[in-house]
Amino acid sequence: MTKEMKAGDIGLIGLGVMGLNLAQNIAENGFSVIGHDVSSSMTMSRTFLDYSSDLKDFVKKLKKPRKIMLLVPAGQTVEEVIDALLPYLEPKDLIVDAGNSHFEDTLRRSKALETQNINFFGLGISGGEAGARNGASLMGAGDPNVFESIRPILEAVAARDEHNNICALRLGNSPEVGHFVKMVHNSIEYAEMQLISEVYSQFSEIKDYSNERISDFLINWRGDIEGSFLLDVTSQVLTVADEVSGVPLIDMIEDIAEQKGTGKWGTVSAINLGVAAPTLYEAVSTRFLSQYKTDRLAASEIYAPKVNKSDVISNEIIKDAFSAAKICAFAQGFQLLAFANLEYSWNMKLREIAQVWKAGCILRGNILDKIIRAFDKNASLTNLLLDDELSKKLKNSIGQLRLVVSEGALCGLPLPAHTSSLSYFDAYTKARLPINLVQAQRDFFGSHGYQRIDKEGTFHSIWVN
Amino acid sequence: MTKEMKAGDIGLIGLGVMGLNLAQNIAENGFSVIGHDVSSSMTMSRTFLDYSSDLKDFVKKLKKPRKIMLLVPAGQTVEEVIDALLPYLEPKDLIVDAGNSHFEDTLRRSKALETQNINFFGLGISGGEAGARNGASLMGAGDPNVFESIRPILEAVAARDEHNNICALRLGNSPEVGHFVKMVHNSIEYAEMQLISEVYSQFSEIKDYSNERISDFLINWRGDIEGSFLLDVTSQVLTVADEVSGVPLIDMIEDIAEQKGTGKWGTVSAINLGVAAPTLYEAVSTRFLSQYKTDRLAASEIYAPKVNKSDVISNEIIKDAFSAAKICAFAQGFQLLAFANLEYSWNMKLREIAQVWKAGCILRGNILDKIIRAFDKNASLTNLLLDDELSKKLKNSIGQLRLVVSEGALCGLPLPAHTSSLSYFDAYTKARLPINLVQAQRDFFGSHGYQRIDKEGTFHSIWVN
Repeated sequence: MTKEMKAGDIGLIGLGVMGLNLAQNIAENGFSVIGHDVSSSMTMSRTFLDYSSDLKDFVKKLKKPRKIMLLVPAGQTVEEVIDALLPYLEPKDLIVDAGNSHFEDTLRRSKALETQNINFFGLGISGGEAGARNGASLMGAGDPNVFESIRPILEAVAARDEHNNICALRLGNSPEVGHFVKMVHNSIEYAEMQLISEVYSQFSEIKDYSNERISDFLINWRGDIEGSFLLDVTSQVLTVADEVSGVPLIDMIEDIAEQKGTGKWGTVSAINLGVAAPTLYEAVSTRFLSQYKTDRLAASEIYAPKVNKSDVISNEIIKDAFSAAKICAFAQGFQLLAFANLEYSWNMKLREIAQVWKAGCILRGNILDKIIRAFDKNASLTNLLLDDELSKKLKNSIGQLRLVVSEGALCGLPLPAHTSSLSYFDAYTKARLPINLVQAQRDFFGSHGYQRIDKEGTFHSIWVN
Repeated sequence: MTKEMKAGDIGLIGLGVMGLNLAQNIAENGFSVIGHDVSSSMTMSRTFLDYSSDLKDFVKKLKKPRKIMLLVPAGQTVEEVIDALLPYLEPKDLIVDAGNSHFEDTLRRSKALETQNINFFGLGISGGEAGARNGASLMGAGDPNVFESIRPILEAVAARDEHNNICALRLGNSPEVGHFVKMVHNSIEYAEMQLISEVYSQFSEIKDYSNERISDFLINWRGDIEGSFLLDVTSQVLTVADEVSGVPLIDMIEDIAEQKGTGKWGTVSAINLGVAAPTLYEAVSTRFLSQYKTDRLAASEIYAPKVNKSDVISNEIIKDAFSAAKICAFAQGFQLLAFANLEYSWNMKLREIAQVWKAGCILRGNILDKIIRAFDKNASLTNLLLDDELSKKLKNSIGQLRLVVSEGALCGLPLPAHTSSLSYFDAYTKARLPINLVQAQRDFFGSHGYQRIDKEGTFHSIWVN
């Protein structure tokens, strides 16, 4: 790690919790940080930060060519900050957008800035506040020389996995790649959260376990493929008591979830690229459903549903079913990366994406080791379901996913992410789908033509006897 | 119906099968039609059509203010045709885009043309070639006076339902509404096709019925809520023999389905508008999966799946499960319309959309009568699942959907559309989802805050004991 940079090594714009934590992390690694915030109420300096409320002054304090990192809300704010900065910048200066911008916006901005010789790329950051402070997962991209110029700083603040691998990498050749990868990260994150919430509901509603007892079970999954940061979070969350009532805090929380743009965008990108990603989709869709609380209450009056208890599914079955579904979710996410790689010629190495998620980020977990091994064996693997180690795990757990899906359906417990994972698995592994009928229907009413199994070409029939 | 228009009542650009059929239909209703095609190879005139290969001449032949209908491929071609037309048009002339354009493109084009005083709106047409020739479902929109000027022609070529209601309506106040409604129509159409293909696979793979026998069953569903044009198409398709081999033609067709843009767009719009539409999504996603044929063959080698036979599900159960799933698919489509209506202030009446789909279009079927009644009872119904007649049907059929989903999971038969409909039903009717855990997780790692069940406001916890 080079630490020879001195005054004004990097400027940070956007000093919310993430920005401040990252600034402190950078500073503690020996780099000097200049801070700025668009909010006029933000006038603080910190010991680790030389704050400037004046943008021109902020830029002046930076060593040339300047490195400026934005941690501001995606959308119009990014636009405004860039516009405000431009008059003070010079050719070769670098802006890094470290927010959750849409990758297409990042590409558009990089092209616009290129005409002025300003370097620009999007940096995906995962790890939340804690990651920003203590080591995050950093997904970079773009021109190798540009990335090289800021690599020492990124590497210094990045998390390291248990083998001391640094979780900050240049993942592709185009400036928007990091934001695309972060978007897919978030889509998989949504899916894992939804899958865990379905595990929780199986335990609590079908098996009637207490939160404490569920937490104990989940802790015991840590060492296996199921183990992950989000599972640890869940174990912990389930043990916290409400300070006011003394009951488990989780029971006092409303069943309505918000979402930011990235989960939606990931699913939309999958559709646009022709990638089947039903588990990622159901995670987004179930959050939508959670928001129709008034309708749900009205519907529950009409249908008076109740979840039946069942002894069919054991703790071990719930665990294995979760594994199988989780592998399918990751398979969909990595297929989305693979399709984007082909479509956009980004030259990503999917192994490195799994590597950069190994530590610091929300998705970190044991499954990533298996994914890394899968791409080590076959760098151009088209789907994780085709890997021998993961397929072995799936063969040993798909039967349990069948039981969980079947029992959820019969008991009246919605398990959209588990269920769609099984549908995905069964369709993906099926040599012949009933889609021949869809082809025939389309040819019947729209003369769209069809392909035959016995010869090449497109055929059309008059569908009368 | 007014038929007083004489020479050059309407011009049609794009004389593919749809365009020619529509032209003949219009002409047979007493209107004079001028035709033009961008393809220079198209030089034919027909008895019902005055063809002009020269665009200027084509426009000259039309009565002022001119009415020109485009039946050309969505996208760049529409742009090019409009640009080519513009020099010859005058204020008050009307262009109707009758192709499958994206509704956002239609809005953009209408705004651009408005500056030149050219009227423009998108017309959704469903019914395929037969509909164009004999009566289609026509989804119009926009300025009432503009619509009124072409209404006689649209009504003349529209289908009529059994009560002689004309299936050509102005559905909303903005020029893009018709294309939006057509897009949702296609999304539901995809879902119904997928559901029927899953019915077919249950019969053929779980129950081992012949195509002929399946066809006989489906014909018997005609009189009930399940009855529809697509079901009729399917019954017919299953009886056709391959001319070459003599085996059922359906068995010779490849299990790979193409799709045009509208199905994808509908799902993307649902995501953008926050509408949960998992059945519509699975129909699109399963077509994607159908295209990974090479991967599916590889996966089927690895996993060697086989579909188990079962006697648990009877013909009656398959039928009722299909009903329940189909109601859920329509509920999602109509919720997408309802959300768009609110978001864009289109002033659509959902009853009229069901009415316009009653005849001529691919979606026509018995369920639409129940949907019309639902909106008659409550014009602002937020979801079809809350209607008393449809909910009664659902209460009597959801148990059968549970059996089908459970049996599909255990037998290894992918039923993504049925399965996602059940997940949707169970989540939509559930007063409390396990999404409280998702809120807690988000607050744990991202400090996103959470809502409580016992008091207003947003709260944040430090999630350690």
